Amino acid sequence: MEQAIKQSEVITSQELFKHWMGHRQLTRKVIEAIPEKDFFSFSIGGMRTPALLVSELLAIAGPGLQQIVEGKTEKLDEHLDFKNSKATALALWDEADNQIKKYWTKISNERFHDRIVTFGQYEGSIWSSIFYFIDNEIHHRAQMYVYLRALNIEPPAFWDRDFGDK
Amino acid sequence: MEQAIKQSEVITSQELFKHWMGHRQLTRKVIEAIPEKDFFSFSIGGMRTPALLVSELLAIAGPGLQQIVEGKTEKLDEHLDFKNSKATALALWDEADNQIKKYWTKISNERFHDRIVTFGQYEGSIWSSIFYFIDNEIHHRAQMYVYLRALNIEPPAFWDRDFGDK
Repeated sequence: MEQAIKQSEVITSQELFKHWMGHRQLTRKVIEAIPEKDFFSFSIGGMRTPALLVSELLAIAGPGLQQIVEGKTEKLDEHLDFKNSKATALALWDEADNQIKKYWTKISNERFHDRIVTFGQYEGSIWSSIFYFIDNEIHHRAQMYVYLRALNIEPPAFWDRDFGDK
Repeated sequence: MEQAIKQSEVITSQELFKHWMGHRQLTRKVIEAIPEKDFFSFSIGGMRTPALLVSELLAIAGPGLQQIVEGKTEKLDEHLDFKNSKATALALWDEADNQIKKYWTKISNERFHDRIVTFGQYEGSIWSSIFYFIDNEIHHRAQMYVYLRALNIEPPAFWDRDFGDK
């Protein structure tokens, strides 16, 4: 899947993929750091629990990319059942990694500026949709950083990840 | 500053610029939403106050881009003096927007894969450094979202911004 870098490109498809996977590995570490009971119950200011935030992230990443590749427009379904087990959430996280890896190879470079509607509702380009998936993950993961701090647990370092640039 | 989209590009320089500015406008709205006294004092779990988080963001964005353009390697200086006034922070935010706008036009498309060391310390490509600046802003802004929720204040919607794709 290696590709030559055209000198005038900001970022290649392969780099963006690695960059995202680096973020996903960090998010996985954050999930691991949250105690099991807090994963399903902790909240600040009426916000969603870590389990519900992770459920949203899982509902977006793999299924979103699948829609981009296959042109389907299924609705967002955030109701994942973790069976009250963080291990289940982590297994689904790993499964989503594999899904993303599989679908990524099917997005040809020529398609990133195509206009699409993800989840039958969100209009954008393919690149801006993928950026939304990543940005939204950073956003909710950062909220889990605050949860960890409030629980007096040191979160993994924000910079301790693969930036995708090597 | 408009540029033609080469069909094989993931994202153009101009799109990345607009995407970042969209994020910066949202961060500005978040700063505006935080009450003056909480901006300088509120914290959860021993974390930094909004003022200190914003101070870091200001220390990175404009100065970081300046270093990328001018090849300087000044150290990160996060000690900005807001004179205990949120208006000062917002004025510096707007000033940084102008700096970013100015320096962005000076990064030629051919340079995004050049290796650099920002703040004399952080090694990466130009694109990954800029992505770090943006990701770090999303990260700390999301923490301020939690602060706002804890203060029982509705934050601006995460998706209410210019995605840079039009």
